[in-house]
Amino acid sequence: MITDPLSTIFAALADPTRRAILARLRSGEASVKELAEPFAMSLPAISKHLKVLERAGLITRGREAQWRPARLEADTLKEAADWISEYRIFWEESFDRLADVLRELQSEGNDRDHSQS
Amino acid sequence: MITDPLSTIFAALADPTRRAILARLRSGEASVKELAEPFAMSLPAISKHLKVLERAGLITRGREAQWRPARLEADTLKEAADWISEYRIFWEESFDRLADVLRELQSEGNDRDHSQS
Repeated sequence: MITDPLSTIFAALADPTRRAILARLRSGEASVKELAEPFAMSLPAISKHLKVLERAGLITRGREAQWRPARLEADTLKEAADWISEYRIFWEESFDRLADVLRELQSEGNDRDHSQS
Repeated sequence: MITDPLSTIFAALADPTRRAILARLRSGEASVKELAEPFAMSLPAISKHLKVLERAGLITRGREAQWRPARLEADTLKEAADWISEYRIFWEESFDRLADVLRELQSEGNDRDHSQS
């Protein structure tokens, strides 16, 4: 059973429909019906996804019983971004290494061209 | 069944033990035995977590049959970071709004102080 906030956030993001819902909410709040439209999915299936997102704190829902618009809570995504950013130095390192390799290959290529000319 | 790469990455991150394993691998590659040490967990349990991380591309394992050291693959984390960074503008917006509210409260506080003096 997942209980820590960060695990709940990452688990909520581990689904393409839920990520598409978050993407849709960037252009403003939306009802379950509006959110369901682009998907070949029933309203209860979308509601279930919204519950997972709400539990993770990635969205909030309005109080209006009929409509209950969902709204993006981007601050929660910042928590996930902060965790991942601790690893930035490592992927930047590997890009640096890749750049080194490319530079080496290029210089070898130049040497070959020169020796051929 | 989760199949898209980003979902597999986020699902792999949705566990505190797996995140702790990635954190440990920042200081260099390590064997299953070394990775198991800080946890009250059996080697097979740790191996299972490593398989999830490996499938997501977050680690690679060495070929040595006995030792099979695990190594961090930070480039995969960059994919998750890139997805989340699309939302940066939204959490920065909400911090701006919070700053506005704080400024307003402060200015109201100052007004009150002045009217009391």
